[in-house]
Amino acid sequence: MDIYSLCLYLCCVYLSAAQRYEPTWESLESRPLPSWFDEAKLGIFMHWGVFSVPSYSAVWFWNYWKNGHKDINNFMKRNYRPGYTYADFAADFKTEFYDPKRWAAILQASGAKYVVLVSKHHEGFTNWPSNYSWNWNSYDTGPHRDLVGELATAVRETTDLRFGLYHSLYEWFNPLYLKDKENNFTTQNFVKMKTMPELYELVNRYKPEVIWSDGDWEASDSYWMSKEFIAWLYNDSPVRDTVVTNDRWGRGDMCHHGGYLTCSDRYNPKTLQKRKFENPMTIDKNHWGFRREANIEDFYTSKELISTFAETISCGGNMLMNVGPTSYGTIQPIYEERLLQFGKWMKINEEAIYKSKPWTTQQDYATNAWYTMQKTTSGTNVYAILLDWPDKNYLYLNAPVASSSTSITMLGYSGYFSYSKVQPSGINITLPVISFSKIPSTDAWVFKLTDLKN
Amino acid sequence: MDIYSLCLYLCCVYLSAAQRYEPTWESLESRPLPSWFDEAKLGIFMHWGVFSVPSYSAVWFWNYWKNGHKDINNFMKRNYRPGYTYADFAADFKTEFYDPKRWAAILQASGAKYVVLVSKHHEGFTNWPSNYSWNWNSYDTGPHRDLVGELATAVRETTDLRFGLYHSLYEWFNPLYLKDKENNFTTQNFVKMKTMPELYELVNRYKPEVIWSDGDWEASDSYWMSKEFIAWLYNDSPVRDTVVTNDRWGRGDMCHHGGYLTCSDRYNPKTLQKRKFENPMTIDKNHWGFRREANIEDFYTSKELISTFAETISCGGNMLMNVGPTSYGTIQPIYEERLLQFGKWMKINEEAIYKSKPWTTQQDYATNAWYTMQKTTSGTNVYAILLDWPDKNYLYLNAPVASSSTSITMLGYSGYFSYSKVQPSGINITLPVISFSKIPSTDAWVFKLTDLKN
Amino acid sequence: MDIYSLCLYLCCVYLSAAQRYEPTWESLESRPLPSWFDEAKLGIFMHWGVFSVPSYSAVWFWNYWKNGHKDINNFMKRNYRPGYTYADFAADFKTEFYDPKRWAAILQASGAKYVVLVSKHHEGFTNWPSNYSWNWNSYDTGPHRDLVGELATAVRETTDLRFGLYHSLYEWFNPLYLKDKENNFTTQNFVKMKTMPELYELVNRYKPEVIWSDGDWEASDSYWMSKEFIAWLYNDSPVRDTVVTNDRWGRGDMCHHGGYLTCSDRYNPKTLQKRKFENPMTIDKNHWGFRREANIEDFYTSKELISTFAETISCGGNMLMNVGPTSYGTIQPIYEERLLQFGKWMKINEEAIYKSKPWTTQQDYATNAWYTMQKTTSGTNVYAILLDWPDKNYLYLNAPVASSSTSITMLGYSGYFSYSKVQPSGINITLPVISFSKIPSTDAWVFKLTDLKN
Amino acid sequence: MDIYSLCLYLCCVYLSAAQRYEPTWESLESRPLPSWFDEAKLGIFMHWGVFSVPSYSAVWFWNYWKNGHKDINNFMKRNYRPGYTYADFAADFKTEFYDPKRWAAILQASGAKYVVLVSKHHEGFTNWPSNYSWNWNSYDTGPHRDLVGELATAVRETTDLRFGLYHSLYEWFNPLYLKDKENNFTTQNFVKMKTMPELYELVNRYKPEVIWSDGDWEASDSYWMSKEFIAWLYNDSPVRDTVVTNDRWGRGDMCHHGGYLTCSDRYNPKTLQKRKFENPMTIDKNHWGFRREANIEDFYTSKELISTFAETISCGGNMLMNVGPTSYGTIQPIYEERLLQFGKWMKINEEAIYKSKPWTTQQDYATNAWYTMQKTTSGTNVYAILLDWPDKNYLYLNAPVASSSTSITMLGYSGYFSYSKVQPSGINITLPVISFSKIPSTDAWVFKLTDLKN
Repeated sequence: MDIYSLCLYLCCVYLSAAQRYEPTWESLESRPLPSWFDEAKLGIFMHWGVFSVPSYSAVWFWNYWKNGHKDINNFMKRNYRPGYTYADFAADFKTEFYDPKRWAAILQASGAKYVVLVSKHHEGFTNWPSNYSWNWNSYDTGPHRDLVGELATAVRETTDLRFGLYHSLYEWFNPLYLKDKENNFTTQNFVKMKTMPELYELVNRYKPEVIWSDGDWEASDSYWMSKEFIAWLYNDSPVRDTVVTNDRWGRGDMCHHGGYLTCSDRYNPKTLQKRKFENPMTIDKNHWGFRREANIEDFYTSKELISTFAETISCGGNMLMNVGPTSYGTIQPIYEERLLQFGKWMKINEEAIYKSKPWTTQQDYATNAWYTMQKTTSGTNVYAILLDWPDKNYLYLNAPVASSSTSITMLGYSGYFSYSKVQPSGINITLPVISFSKIPSTDAWVFKLTDLKN
Repeated sequence: MDIYSLCLYLCCVYLSAAQRYEPTWESLESRPLPSWFDEAKLGIFMHWGVFSVPSYSAVWFWNYWKNGHKDINNFMKRNYRPGYTYADFAADFKTEFYDPKRWAAILQASGAKYVVLVSKHHEGFTNWPSNYSWNWNSYDTGPHRDLVGELATAVRETTDLRFGLYHSLYEWFNPLYLKDKENNFTTQNFVKMKTMPELYELVNRYKPEVIWSDGDWEASDSYWMSKEFIAWLYNDSPVRDTVVTNDRWGRGDMCHHGGYLTCSDRYNPKTLQKRKFENPMTIDKNHWGFRREANIEDFYTSKELISTFAETISCGGNMLMNVGPTSYGTIQPIYEERLLQFGKWMKINEEAIYKSKPWTTQQDYATNAWYTMQKTTSGTNVYAILLDWPDKNYLYLNAPVASSSTSITMLGYSGYFSYSKVQPSGINITLPVISFSKIPSTDAWVFKLTDLKN
Repeated sequence: MDIYSLCLYLCCVYLSAAQRYEPTWESLESRPLPSWFDEAKLGIFMHWGVFSVPSYSAVWFWNYWKNGHKDINNFMKRNYRPGYTYADFAADFKTEFYDPKRWAAILQASGAKYVVLVSKHHEGFTNWPSNYSWNWNSYDTGPHRDLVGELATAVRETTDLRFGLYHSLYEWFNPLYLKDKENNFTTQNFVKMKTMPELYELVNRYKPEVIWSDGDWEASDSYWMSKEFIAWLYNDSPVRDTVVTNDRWGRGDMCHHGGYLTCSDRYNPKTLQKRKFENPMTIDKNHWGFRREANIEDFYTSKELISTFAETISCGGNMLMNVGPTSYGTIQPIYEERLLQFGKWMKINEEAIYKSKPWTTQQDYATNAWYTMQKTTSGTNVYAILLDWPDKNYLYLNAPVASSSTSITMLGYSGYFSYSKVQPSGINITLPVISFSKIPSTDAWVFKLTDLKN
Repeated sequence: MDIYSLCLYLCCVYLSAAQRYEPTWESLESRPLPSWFDEAKLGIFMHWGVFSVPSYSAVWFWNYWKNGHKDINNFMKRNYRPGYTYADFAADFKTEFYDPKRWAAILQASGAKYVVLVSKHHEGFTNWPSNYSWNWNSYDTGPHRDLVGELATAVRETTDLRFGLYHSLYEWFNPLYLKDKENNFTTQNFVKMKTMPELYELVNRYKPEVIWSDGDWEASDSYWMSKEFIAWLYNDSPVRDTVVTNDRWGRGDMCHHGGYLTCSDRYNPKTLQKRKFENPMTIDKNHWGFRREANIEDFYTSKELISTFAETISCGGNMLMNVGPTSYGTIQPIYEERLLQFGKWMKINEEAIYKSKPWTTQQDYATNAWYTMQKTTSGTNVYAILLDWPDKNYLYLNAPVASSSTSITMLGYSGYFSYSKVQPSGINITLPVISFSKIPSTDAWVFKLTDLKN
């Protein structure tokens, strides 16, 4: 732990002893974000639930179906008996190949430092044996297992990742919710009988260090009793010291209030942000859940994923990269391949990633490269993550101002690169003959620049 | 309406204007039982639910299974995949042949005057789209229909039967209930979040005129908030004028408090009772639900059913005769046959049944015959329901004391029977040659005696 | 064995030693029908197969479906996914409650002396592990059991019934058959590859004593190679001494050629027949298979069944009474009840039934009574099976001519009946006061008349 | 068509007019292999069937299961009800996403020139509506589609690939086969009733240009009647001019007799072969069917696949690369990715592949490079397929002897490479600075050498 972190930590301890958070945004937002989160940079998101059974079209399958979405209606008509209901899918959510230790190993290998598993999506099906969702959960039906609990245990026992949970406040078709909604949210039966009891249960039982809230947008945070929950989370919960949460806690809160900001799905602002943010995005370009009909073009390449990651962390964000497991409990090989490709790249370039901070420039003006920075005891290092290899035999970077002691290397490659200063700004790095067998990556390359003037 | 009933009615109207029932047994039990119930004599009970899917062993299937019942465990092991849960059965509760109008016609033909359908058994599955049992009800899963509502409508539109509902207070495996129980019923989350909201919903939505409560025995009526519910039922509910309820509202209440008494399953005291009671019994001798493995010996014959009925009404009770429909929505032919046999007998003998009162004697001392009585404007008629035809050509009845104007006939047979008085007590009725083709029944015969001295 | 049977037996032995049957009707029909068959009078037919899974409408379900039958098409549309095929039903043919010993006990109790089980209906699904119907039989799919073999064993081990098998020559949708048919039956691939190999297998493996052939009508017996099969059956098969077969062996054969005649389903000629016949009829009035939608009115009463039986045997026929077991392997209680009611009546009246012969009169001219006759060492007894009890206190029979030593009794009732001769014909039997508790039956009554003049 | 091919063609036409093949290997093997096959180099193999439903362990699932394979037995015990049979899986073979045009597009994109689809594997289930496999085929059950016919049409309408079929002679558990086997193959009921009728049906109906026979090894080609079938195939079948077939036609034939040789699964001799061979191999390293439990490490990388391909064609073989589609009818993304990666490489390097011939050297002595050769009107070109990029900035090839007019280029890269001759043998090619963005592949690189002396 460096002195800065230590200081922050002691400060926190002091403050938490002295002070309790009030259920107001002002008070709640005065809490410093636990430092592990900013340092982690990469998390893996996992969307798993009853929607993994039809595994067609989208995780919003049920909603689209009920709202007359043509493809889904045809799919149901062609393949199921009339009167088949969404609840009937639960019996086929069998997860017979679910091996949480194997999942944990894959997550670890991806280079991520936290995982956020869907505990309950808008369908209302809980992936744990909830006391408040009887016979509509993974223990009473289909899997007959505590999906959340098993992953929590495996991740903690076999990796250094933090374990987090996604949780949807609303449930599309829960009659209690629909009644409250009909009453313009002047009643709170749903919140009191379902959402809040269940959130407290989740935290007390599984001690997640990320609470990734969602499904908030139809009602205010007063209706949801969110601020009271977060106050408890920060003051009294078993994870009060390390938990982080996002910004989806009531209509109008997103991008304005909460822990860190998500702003929108696939939030990638490409400019430096004042407040910590996270970019929740998907490997299957437009989809969160496993889709049986997906083609290879639907998946981002490792190069595309790494590019988005570079853009995100350069601007101060984390990336939360989504995987959709199958109803039978596996991470499909194409997902596994992307995670391993990502992890291989991270392994080579980790020095530029974990615990890094944004630099003064984010994207280089002249070249498709993004910067991060590490302060060390021996000075500050700047990292240029180059996304396209130049056609020519030199690389021009506009932002860096070299000092006399500046050295330039490429992570994963031995030897120094010669360079020359350019006026009025930047440097020209000479690219030597690099044997194809020696190049550390085919996706992106990190140049490390020491002792810059800026 | 006779003068007595009119009087009672006016009295009720007056009282209900003047007075509201308090949630105490003293107050609640001061309400006179609506007269239709005593007059009805016969009701049909219907046990239907997810247990109708395995349709093996018993409606307590789930409970026995979880408690290690050997046969049920073997049945599951032999016939289902490991990890199959009780909730998984719901998808096969298809009720594809459910025709409520046909059910109503069968009920009508049985001679019954009310029906009591299971709305929810101890398994907690609601046979209506409850707001408080999401995805564990007949609308979201399997049948995809409002089983309760459809029968209510059909019965009201096509018959003169009253529509009633069975409802279990407790639910074996509802985690909310188990938690309250663990807390020695010092908490009431289950009652407040599930049982009571659901009971109010049932009454307001379906307006049942019988509330047949059950599953009360593990906790007091204070825990269940039963007295408050009954007070509302009697004071303010949409069925306040005609509803009746039973005695299963909390530990220790059965046979002591409530509306009418049931005391135990198959309650047949064979002696005159002070308070109105009901004998809930089954056509399948020991079972409430449809069982695929049942043999013909498992079913009572029509003669046995009529005998029990005679015993019951003679002592002031009603009989609630149970039928177990199939998961595909039919009343199996053997059940239908018993109901029609019963109804045929009722049709012939209805004068001795509906609106009858117990006589001074219940069972005749000398003969297996049971008495009922009707007061008419022209005097009192006594009916001896003879259960065994004598071997000899006369019938001796010990209880009746004939007057000079006493006449004796057999319902369904034309002509008067000659008789002689017997000292010290009784009469001897001469049985003539009755052609087998003229005998009104092969099960039981009703002798009508007018103008008796006693 | 009486002298007559012995004689016949020796004669048979002699003939079979001396002579082999040729594959011509003339030769085949020269074989005397084994005597057990005429003596048996009652057989039970059992229709069981994949059609027992939908158990809706009829055993011709598949055929009707493919031919656009409206109800069946609606049934499929409403209850199954598009593309669901008939073959898909096989997986749900589970027979989990199939207990052949229990079936055997019920069959025995019915009074029947033989059983004819469907081994394969027109659907082509074999209820035994056929070598020629791979993956479309009861062993490879659904039941995973040898349904035929298990019943054969149980019937032989625990009853005195003979075991017979129904077998359909044609299979509606077998492509080999359709091809032969397209070729106007000039090719015989289906017969040689399927029907015949399978029939030989059946006989060799299960040794049935009745071969109840069916499905013959679209092609000649030459196409089917029937006569060759029967010649083998009579000459060389393991059941050559006792086997009987019917008349459905090729277009035009029915009612003309074969073993005994069936002529049509429900064949009940009501006049004396020259050749032995069998009346194949159903307890469910119009249907052979178990139907879930059946109502009680669809089933014959025991009285109706006994009446048809009396008519049939009086004219020299046997009755083959059909039962449709369920896909889960049980005989539904309503069927069981009818069988037991029948058996109870048979027990009382067996003297008039088994081994009886037609009398000179079949139906009495004046009264609804049917006659049978037994020759005994002490003379000939005539039995009048009375189907309607007279309204009056005497019974007039037109046919019998009493001798001076004629005595009249009723089977199951003790004592002699007085009677008087009537001119020009018949007798008047005086009916005394019979206590209802002493009457042997409520369905039909058998009067035994000894030493008649005619 | 070049002069050589034309010559061959005319020769063939002449011979086929003049001569008919006899059912002897000598005669059959005198037929020249149609030239398209050798020119094609790459085919795609597709294993699809009922085994795609459990999609666990292997396509030998059924066989292993019946033989007590531990993992498969556990899998069945854990996940299915007792008594579940292999045939029961067929109902879940739904292929609901099967889009043959999409398959055809992927096949085309892979660079392959023919496809070999499993029409029937050892399980005996036919992927077409066979007349000889009633209710055990893709039309009567599960898919309810003609899987073979649909792909045949799509491939022919939208690609330039040839359509071929895999067909297993034996069927593990067909009772007819087991009987023949028991008889030491002295009877041929199975061959005559099943295998041969079905093979003729396949060829006549779908006109496959590859017959990929398998499952032959337990019996001789006399038992199988293979030579007679091939004679018909070559003389009279609708594909007699273009069809090719392999060498699996009876015990002892493999690697010795037939059309082209396969010798063993994954046959990769790495030395020049006298006779045309094919290397049937799998993308999933050890498996032919889709496996749900497969991990990314189980799949060959594109580099590994291309390496094997280079080795194979360099020695005169074709490679038949296997894909296992899912039971729901898709080619999983990981398979699709490999096929597209392969196709991208083929596109760049096609000049070295299609219609190429082996060169005098196969593998270079000094470097991991494999040779092919093309004769053109302007001379002979030799292609060195380099599998590992050198660490140094030159590439030494031992085999080529440069002439004065020899030029060296890299396919997909513009410009000539300078080189020097090496004594006693070979050349040294200078590798310039090649920008990573210009390198045509990351897997393997093809150097084209013109006008060599050898």
